[in-house]
Amino acid sequence: MNSNTGSADSRQLAMTGRFDSNAQLQHGHAAGASPQPDELARDISAAPAAHRGDSLEARLLRRLLGGLGNPPIEFQLLWTGERVAPIGTRPIGHVRVKDRRTLLGLLRDPQMRFGDAYSSGQIEVEGDLVKFMVTLFQIFARTDARDSITSRIGGWLRRPRRNTLAGSRDNIHRHYDLGNDFYALWLGETMAYTCAYYPTAQATLDQAQTAKMDHVCRKLRLGAADSVAEAGCGWGGLALHMASRYGAKVRAFNISKEQIDYARHRARQEGLQNRVEFIEDDYRNITGRYDVFASIGMLEHVSPENYPELGRVARRSLTADGRGLIHSIGRNRPEPLHPWIERRIFPGAYPPSLGEMMGIFEPWNLSVLDVENLRLHYALTLRHWLERYEAALDKVRAMSFDENFVRMWRLYLAGSIAAFETGVMQLFQVLFTTHENNRIPLTREFMYPK
Amino acid sequence: MNSNTGSADSRQLAMTGRFDSNAQLQHGHAAGASPQPDELARDISAAPAAHRGDSLEARLLRRLLGGLGNPPIEFQLLWTGERVAPIGTRPIGHVRVKDRRTLLGLLRDPQMRFGDAYSSGQIEVEGDLVKFMVTLFQIFARTDARDSITSRIGGWLRRPRRNTLAGSRDNIHRHYDLGNDFYALWLGETMAYTCAYYPTAQATLDQAQTAKMDHVCRKLRLGAADSVAEAGCGWGGLALHMASRYGAKVRAFNISKEQIDYARHRARQEGLQNRVEFIEDDYRNITGRYDVFASIGMLEHVSPENYPELGRVARRSLTADGRGLIHSIGRNRPEPLHPWIERRIFPGAYPPSLGEMMGIFEPWNLSVLDVENLRLHYALTLRHWLERYEAALDKVRAMSFDENFVRMWRLYLAGSIAAFETGVMQLFQVLFTTHENNRIPLTREFMYPK
Repeated sequence: MNSNTGSADSRQLAMTGRFDSNAQLQHGHAAGASPQPDELARDISAAPAAHRGDSLEARLLRRLLGGLGNPPIEFQLLWTGERVAPIGTRPIGHVRVKDRRTLLGLLRDPQMRFGDAYSSGQIEVEGDLVKFMVTLFQIFARTDARDSITSRIGGWLRRPRRNTLAGSRDNIHRHYDLGNDFYALWLGETMAYTCAYYPTAQATLDQAQTAKMDHVCRKLRLGAADSVAEAGCGWGGLALHMASRYGAKVRAFNISKEQIDYARHRARQEGLQNRVEFIEDDYRNITGRYDVFASIGMLEHVSPENYPELGRVARRSLTADGRGLIHSIGRNRPEPLHPWIERRIFPGAYPPSLGEMMGIFEPWNLSVLDVENLRLHYALTLRHWLERYEAALDKVRAMSFDENFVRMWRLYLAGSIAAFETGVMQLFQVLFTTHENNRIPLTREFMYPK
Repeated sequence: MNSNTGSADSRQLAMTGRFDSNAQLQHGHAAGASPQPDELARDISAAPAAHRGDSLEARLLRRLLGGLGNPPIEFQLLWTGERVAPIGTRPIGHVRVKDRRTLLGLLRDPQMRFGDAYSSGQIEVEGDLVKFMVTLFQIFARTDARDSITSRIGGWLRRPRRNTLAGSRDNIHRHYDLGNDFYALWLGETMAYTCAYYPTAQATLDQAQTAKMDHVCRKLRLGAADSVAEAGCGWGGLALHMASRYGAKVRAFNISKEQIDYARHRARQEGLQNRVEFIEDDYRNITGRYDVFASIGMLEHVSPENYPELGRVARRSLTADGRGLIHSIGRNRPEPLHPWIERRIFPGAYPPSLGEMMGIFEPWNLSVLDVENLRLHYALTLRHWLERYEAALDKVRAMSFDENFVRMWRLYLAGSIAAFETGVMQLFQVLFTTHENNRIPLTREFMYPK
């Protein structure tokens, strides 16, 4: 058994990243006499197995759930055969826990252990995983309003791993170099691995990804005479779109070798190699002056301490009437990324609050013209990804990804849908320009052509 | 002669609020051997008047202007009859200085003394005052990119006077209770004393003010069933518009007695007294739950230390799917309001950066949906105000405002136009909602009806 008890994380249940020890303490006290999960874990491991129709662990789990406001989730403890059902409400989720060791792990470090135990199959969730995750997030959101200061402090204590030049390379490699073939199975034609833009909720994934690129280009008022620097270009979809549909000249930077190889191949295929240059290098090494600076879905991998540096690069890259757009996952307030997501899925990632994002622009007197929050679009995008991912599982397995990976990736996609649907995560598009640029349209009607 | 030498402000020339001692020091050194203005002032006052075709003060002024990059402004020193013209460029502005004492004051504390000397007539600006101010702002903007950290620190050291409950009452009274008749001369029919919204640059002031109210109501998706809390309602224009055009029920708060009296009178006149309640009280005393929380042009009078309190009021005032909008003058980065404007025009005012504004929303997990920067609209609005003000000067004088006030108000309006046109000031509309609200439109097309 894991002897790592008493950590700050051990008082947290469920993978919300938002339910911190302080909030639960308050909630527990309000509800009566709920013990702390780490105390529970110590109790259980010290006590002999009790079987008076109801095991010790079942009773303790019930008490803990009571302290959490009786979430409508039923637990089934496979090693005792018991069910711990919510009191007074119909369960919306059913969780099967395989063994006592898994339950204890969950009580001790729920944020990490729920994801790992789900991935390894020691926890099964019956029914709709997305619905289950949405419900979890909603439950914990309710207990969440009061703890902003705690989470703010917590956010700074639990920083993700740093994105130095070398660190970034390592972090980006771990996620994006899983293989272009893997991502091609579920990202759709555009290979855009960022939030799409749904003109209507009925749009297909490919339509919405193309609409996103057009939405971005329109915001930037991209024209044929324009030069563009793109920081973090993924598989090159936007750069190629800007060149082929708008006639722009693009220099696109990315440190993922696999993505750059793929993007260069596509540029040659589409005959755009004279208009789009893909450069395997860090955004900090962008040189030259451009009419447009764009960065879609890279900021999540830039540590907040590097925001002023990113702003410096944007400022020095822009002509006097240059326009910039940064598109990033964000938060309503500073909070660390969920530790399981940061550890297993996105090493080094951090989604900033809008206030934190201003650390990019304010030091350089860059002028923010427009901010749009597209969080519901990311929920739709992720639903399309998950659907395609599930449909392609045979192919994923054939690529020699093991069952642990298959389940881990499903939980990541399902949990992300829930995070965007419940308002735990945001998606910000920030349009900006130099402080001296007066060549800006009076209204935003041009973004919505008739 | 004023013996108050050596203050931090004394090294700053011109009323930009952005040209701080450090920037000038750097600039001066780069240009060669420019002495500091306060040293110049001491030199002059100690030295006997020199008249070898070129007085000492003229030569020192020329050296100082050289250190500032030779701005294209010609000075005429009326007590010596000399002209100090820019070298190598045609002057775009002509400044007549009446006496040596005024020049010394200007060198010592330019930020305060320029405005005061202009108001008293000891300084005359020949030609287009707005153009002159725009040029001044542009000159100093160029030397400005490097001093962000200094100005950030400076911003916190030079805080405006605090807006406690009692302090706010006093500060608001000084500006807004100058008399409804005075404002009625130049604000137009709507009596809206905030940035208008110009669907096209050709719109009239009244059209643009009405368009602004509709733009705000559309963003908030205001409907007939909605209740509204308005924090800082001015002369009541928006509240009455929301009730008469959208059928909403509005409770509007303001601590200016004159404004509230005027607004109540209008409500009775328009038969809206059952739909709109005007309350002479501080926004911090708003009670109840509403579908909409709106605050247009009040934030400038809320000290940044009170932003979390404003957010708390907004959060507790909103239903679960409530929407809010805060409209405020702002900055690209934290900086104090120009000291002359703060002292003579807007006591206690502070225009925040977008990052600072997030101090309203982030502590309460409020979700920012949309930010729009309307700074060019404020330049247009102010141009209309100044035009009307100049046309109504006979009436202003008949209200027993003296010539000093007349000139002070002109400088305030002209300088504000310049501030918005040169990007020194911004205007932010921030649309937000509760973190749990999912009843938000997918796109912003609804803001731009066809």
